[in-house]
Amino acid sequence: MEYIQQQFDVNFSFGVFFSRHLFDPANTCLSAFLESKASTAFQKKLLVILDGGVAASHPGLAEQISRYLGQVRGFQLAPEIITIAGGESVKNDLPLLFSLVDAIDRYGIDRHSYVIGVGGGSLLDLVGFAAAISHRGVKHIRIPTTVLSQNDSGVGVKNGVNYKGKKNFLGSFAPPAAVFNDSTFLTTLDGRDWRSGMVEAVKVALIRDAAFFEWMEQRAAALTAGDMPGMEELIYRCADLHMAHIGGGGDPFESGSARPLDFGHWSAHKLEQLTNFALRHGEAVSIGIAIDSVYSCLLGWISESDMHRIVSVLKQMQLPVWHPLLEKQDGKPSPVIAGLEEFREHLGGQLTISLLKAIGKGAEVHHIDLDLLYKAADICKNLQ
Amino acid sequence: MEYIQQQFDVNFSFGVFFSRHLFDPANTCLSAFLESKASTAFQKKLLVILDGGVAASHPGLAEQISRYLGQVRGFQLAPEIITIAGGESVKNDLPLLFSLVDAIDRYGIDRHSYVIGVGGGSLLDLVGFAAAISHRGVKHIRIPTTVLSQNDSGVGVKNGVNYKGKKNFLGSFAPPAAVFNDSTFLTTLDGRDWRSGMVEAVKVALIRDAAFFEWMEQRAAALTAGDMPGMEELIYRCADLHMAHIGGGGDPFESGSARPLDFGHWSAHKLEQLTNFALRHGEAVSIGIAIDSVYSCLLGWISESDMHRIVSVLKQMQLPVWHPLLEKQDGKPSPVIAGLEEFREHLGGQLTISLLKAIGKGAEVHHIDLDLLYKAADICKNLQ
Repeated sequence: MEYIQQQFDVNFSFGVFFSRHLFDPANTCLSAFLESKASTAFQKKLLVILDGGVAASHPGLAEQISRYLGQVRGFQLAPEIITIAGGESVKNDLPLLFSLVDAIDRYGIDRHSYVIGVGGGSLLDLVGFAAAISHRGVKHIRIPTTVLSQNDSGVGVKNGVNYKGKKNFLGSFAPPAAVFNDSTFLTTLDGRDWRSGMVEAVKVALIRDAAFFEWMEQRAAALTAGDMPGMEELIYRCADLHMAHIGGGGDPFESGSARPLDFGHWSAHKLEQLTNFALRHGEAVSIGIAIDSVYSCLLGWISESDMHRIVSVLKQMQLPVWHPLLEKQDGKPSPVIAGLEEFREHLGGQLTISLLKAIGKGAEVHHIDLDLLYKAADICKNLQ
Repeated sequence: MEYIQQQFDVNFSFGVFFSRHLFDPANTCLSAFLESKASTAFQKKLLVILDGGVAASHPGLAEQISRYLGQVRGFQLAPEIITIAGGESVKNDLPLLFSLVDAIDRYGIDRHSYVIGVGGGSLLDLVGFAAAISHRGVKHIRIPTTVLSQNDSGVGVKNGVNYKGKKNFLGSFAPPAAVFNDSTFLTTLDGRDWRSGMVEAVKVALIRDAAFFEWMEQRAAALTAGDMPGMEELIYRCADLHMAHIGGGGDPFESGSARPLDFGHWSAHKLEQLTNFALRHGEAVSIGIAIDSVYSCLLGWISESDMHRIVSVLKQMQLPVWHPLLEKQDGKPSPVIAGLEEFREHLGGQLTISLLKAIGKGAEVHHIDLDLLYKAADICKNLQ
């Protein structure tokens, strides 16, 4: 038997820029980036997909974007800014996915051109996937407009849509060409989105950075009340930790089973789905962090006082730490806890759950004691 | 403005195995590969998508595959071998793509499990794309069954399907987990598939390896007549050169404009499409190689005698070197030559066409002289 071994490395690199008033003509952050990518030999193209909710909160935004991008040297902006709904529901809409593919085709977006998504995490997931599968991958730029997408999903390397009720069943790993975080967009977020977006910062601090957790403990009340410089710092530090994990963790495209960044997420995914997304992602993760922290405490991994510190930060952020679906329903298993196996299937391989060895230090287990888990849920109920 | 730079490398590696009678119980090539990937912690799964044309030419193949894979330790084979049509038409069938995605879901194929495609290049492109977008990428194994897929597309890193009449508009770069080339499948190919598959070897030899071209010159008649050991060597050498280009060329996922492996392909894609795939891919590429070689000669890049050697090898392989669509049609431009711009759009960026500086040495141009190109086509007409 003969044999040839193929072997190569692909380098991925992108910048995450933190700015304000991105589309103000005086702000050259985005235009300078694009112009640095221009070619003297041919004109590149730009296509913008804008979140309708963001457009409604920022009157004149589409026109401002058109004016700004219409003047970037070396680039031709598509004649329309495509405005679509935001929110999780856009990820359930395959015809919408293909309408974006059609627009990429119609406006001649090739592998040297850019699709720019402006919106929350769901819109960015959809736009990133449409770009990833068109022409085997056209470049995309993310402009996340929520706390959650600016500090977490928007700076990562995944995209995806839901398929037949399965969250993110279709998707790919496709790093963006660049990410632009503009805190101006946060000024119009509703309170729940503002607050729940902080939970990924709590999560990544708990598994990676005790000092950052302490910083949030001290500022939780102010952050919750709307402290913008505090929020900008929170987003920067959270994005930085998130990116360091992806870039430095050795498995950016998740070929193994370990998912430390999924701390608090196994129950969260199920809670979102079972409540038909009445719970925000961040709210569901808050409940997930609470139960997994209490479970870590019951295992003897973290102290009772640290467990109370964690729950207290979440409560100061006015986030939930329990949900009735965590209880047995008429003697039947909690549908959330029954979802553990579904979580394993989504990741594939062995069940792998992130827990806490200490504040700032995650660790993994491959087995969950269900009695102990129900006990943890019961403690959360009493702590709420 | 603050800024965080993300930066990481992803390593891709896979083996291409050359064997005979792959599903014979005595052949451990495939089973040993799989068992080396087994886990003690959990069972992995296998799902096979089989080309119906191959199944028809090899009675009992599905049962043989089931028996063989059913006994691989650490793996569970899905309860059905999914048999679908082969040939280019499967790439025009989005519902078929989604039916494969559904099967991946139904049989619990996760990111640790394998989808195995057995068939020609079109089937492998379809199966690879279905695998690439499910769960953000499940592993896939390719078992190419034609000369063309064994020496070229099957050992590469691309997949894709056609969309609204545009060839490979939807697709991705997703290296396989492994490739198994079994020459037994070649014994039942029809003459056109056998002969036309050799053209990618002619192509890669012309741009990379003069000695390999001379080897084919000497054996062209025997190869064309069905010399199997010769064909096995041709496939091995062609696959090796193709893989060396992808792995060693520095741009495996084609972020730049250069496509040396597309020598002879700009006109071929258009010829296939315009003839509604009555021309095989290899036949169309043969015509494309002829015209681009003659054009290289007219530029003074290769000698007239080398140009004749190239055309002679193609003719000895009983492959076409000209097509009426290369002529002006009632005074209007040749629809093939008019397709140059479409080719540029598909690749994006500047027009980049591979030509020959010598036998064994490709080179690129960014401009084509249309008068000279019509002259080259006319010479091909007279040489056929």
